[in-house]
Amino acid sequence: MRQVAILGIGQTKVDEHWDKSLRELGGEACFDAMQDAAMNKMEALFVGNMLSPLIDGQNQLGAFFSDWIGFWGHEAVKVEAACGSGAAAFRAGVMAVASGEIESALVVGVEKMTDKAGHDITAALATAADADYEVDQGVSFVGINALVMRRYMHEYGWKHADFAPFSINAHANAMHNPHARLHMEITTQQFEKSNMVATPINLLDASPIGDGAAAAIIVPAEKVTSVPGRPRIVLAGSGSATDTIAVHSRKDPLFLSAAYASAKRAYEMAGVTPQEIDLFELHDAFSIMTALSLEACGFAERGQGPRLGLDNEIRPGGRVPVCTRGGLKARGHPVGATGMYQIVEVIQQLRGECAETQIQDAKIGMAQNIGGSGATVLTHILKVG
Amino acid sequence: MRQVAILGIGQTKVDEHWDKSLRELGGEACFDAMQDAAMNKMEALFVGNMLSPLIDGQNQLGAFFSDWIGFWGHEAVKVEAACGSGAAAFRAGVMAVASGEIESALVVGVEKMTDKAGHDITAALATAADADYEVDQGVSFVGINALVMRRYMHEYGWKHADFAPFSINAHANAMHNPHARLHMEITTQQFEKSNMVATPINLLDASPIGDGAAAAIIVPAEKVTSVPGRPRIVLAGSGSATDTIAVHSRKDPLFLSAAYASAKRAYEMAGVTPQEIDLFELHDAFSIMTALSLEACGFAERGQGPRLGLDNEIRPGGRVPVCTRGGLKARGHPVGATGMYQIVEVIQQLRGECAETQIQDAKIGMAQNIGGSGATVLTHILKVG
Repeated sequence: MRQVAILGIGQTKVDEHWDKSLRELGGEACFDAMQDAAMNKMEALFVGNMLSPLIDGQNQLGAFFSDWIGFWGHEAVKVEAACGSGAAAFRAGVMAVASGEIESALVVGVEKMTDKAGHDITAALATAADADYEVDQGVSFVGINALVMRRYMHEYGWKHADFAPFSINAHANAMHNPHARLHMEITTQQFEKSNMVATPINLLDASPIGDGAAAAIIVPAEKVTSVPGRPRIVLAGSGSATDTIAVHSRKDPLFLSAAYASAKRAYEMAGVTPQEIDLFELHDAFSIMTALSLEACGFAERGQGPRLGLDNEIRPGGRVPVCTRGGLKARGHPVGATGMYQIVEVIQQLRGECAETQIQDAKIGMAQNIGGSGATVLTHILKVG
Repeated sequence: MRQVAILGIGQTKVDEHWDKSLRELGGEACFDAMQDAAMNKMEALFVGNMLSPLIDGQNQLGAFFSDWIGFWGHEAVKVEAACGSGAAAFRAGVMAVASGEIESALVVGVEKMTDKAGHDITAALATAADADYEVDQGVSFVGINALVMRRYMHEYGWKHADFAPFSINAHANAMHNPHARLHMEITTQQFEKSNMVATPINLLDASPIGDGAAAAIIVPAEKVTSVPGRPRIVLAGSGSATDTIAVHSRKDPLFLSAAYASAKRAYEMAGVTPQEIDLFELHDAFSIMTALSLEACGFAERGQGPRLGLDNEIRPGGRVPVCTRGGLKARGHPVGATGMYQIVEVIQQLRGECAETQIQDAKIGMAQNIGGSGATVLTHILKVG
């Protein structure tokens, strides 16, 4: 594989974009990335999206967006791995450039969710789970995560309030991210009293859906000369792995084996250890997932994830800063776009563009995007270099 | 890019598989390919599928099939480009192996369509078109192709019967393919009198849907030592290109510019001309598409595609044999699987396994898979070598 660099980034605010169509939303992030890179020609487009067939009645988003942004003639394709679609599309773009087949790829993650009512969205999100053996039994996606969280609390003796620091940190960081959906700080008391969704998961354990798009441009690293005032950002590691699609099929439902495997691969490829990661944009779709991700990726012992939050280690300045731009919890979770938001946010940190939540001297950042309840996990490590 | 070889192939019959679930159907083709290659471990799985979110309520087919076939821990992802999904997944697998990132990829195209009623399928297939500017105006997918065919007949003066040889050839060839959905020879008279679908497209201009799955295994070419009695099949060329998603946006709705561009790229990469192609598995979703594909890929002059049929040039033994295993028209068109059926069929020809429809001394075969009405087109050239 030849090394690749990420040259331009773009994103929309995560919001209820009733004034923008699917094509306008995705196009905005693409144009933003192209402007950031001062490039207007790429050889291929990779789109990450989960729900457009169900929500927008639109398939074939490769050609769809290629047409909209004026990439006629070029290669374009959609990659789907449920909520892991964004990073899956990014990895496809990386492979295409790394193989030598193309010289530049634009990757966009996009999702327009708020045009449908809540029960439609709940049903659509459940397509990430096992239709035959989970969904047909009546369990929703949040329901599956609630069962995992209940079991975790039982096994390791944590109280619900012990997860509060994860959400508090995400909301605090989002205050300084203009692209975040939720701009409101929360307290432990609010966390405890929030409306119940699926016990023990309440509204402040869960990430909000939203409309959003984020994009980045991948090129061969050797072609990137330094941009004044900006470091060169290269891909150091990339790993992708799967687990059983149904949680009940796992020997240990409290261990994200695909997160472990994909992170291991990314660490090996990058030649780094967890201790060298300056920030970690993880997939906090629910607060329990923050704990499980930190454990699977080597930042905490099994069953000890919440300790990092309680000890203030996940805040900017802590040992392992997470969700530095708000995470899924407060930046928002436009499912197929989320993985690309994470990539964009890691790059913002490595460029030093994060002001109040800037991680000092950030040189190596990691992003981990999860599809389903840990079924598909992609980990990317980016570095200044 | 390092060169890749295709080592194993597998497929199910295209049929109404009411006795098989989506996972069983796709799994069957995967196991068939693994048995054919005498391999049981691959490093990644790429799935081509268009309709499972809409028909089966199932997303994340990468993890879904990886789980079913026992590939726990490995990378797995779905690629979607409407009816071009199969070849798009194949190209993703090629890139991943060609980049050096992985040493083996299993690619499966799978679609289970017949569990839903016809009007549901018509609506689902329309997601390949432009939801905002085509489908919302009330046009179906066959309706779009009917407009193109009517215009073509008007521009170039062809009668409907002039397209008969395309369907007659496909049906005749399918008689000898045990995996084909339709085993019935047809005559020009039957072609002319068939039930109208969307004038001028009648039932014998149109390919039937179906349930089906086809798979292949990709490995670095240098790792393949010759198998006794079997030639080594390598990828010679691969091209992927897009056009506007809506047909009405094209300057010339009668020219498949993405078919032209993707074939051009594949020819250049393979270093061959159309004259050197021994057989061409093209995307005959409708008879008009056969004419347009032959023209865009350099086998006929503009407007002269039907001449090749009338002159018997497309039959086995002709100048450019097409649909040698029945094509979409008679093998059947399980949309997201079709591109992989084409790859599998080209390999069967290059291996000399096609008995009555075997192309003598076939050394170079081409497969072209189309998403939407020419919006996404992927062309692959395989050769003995």
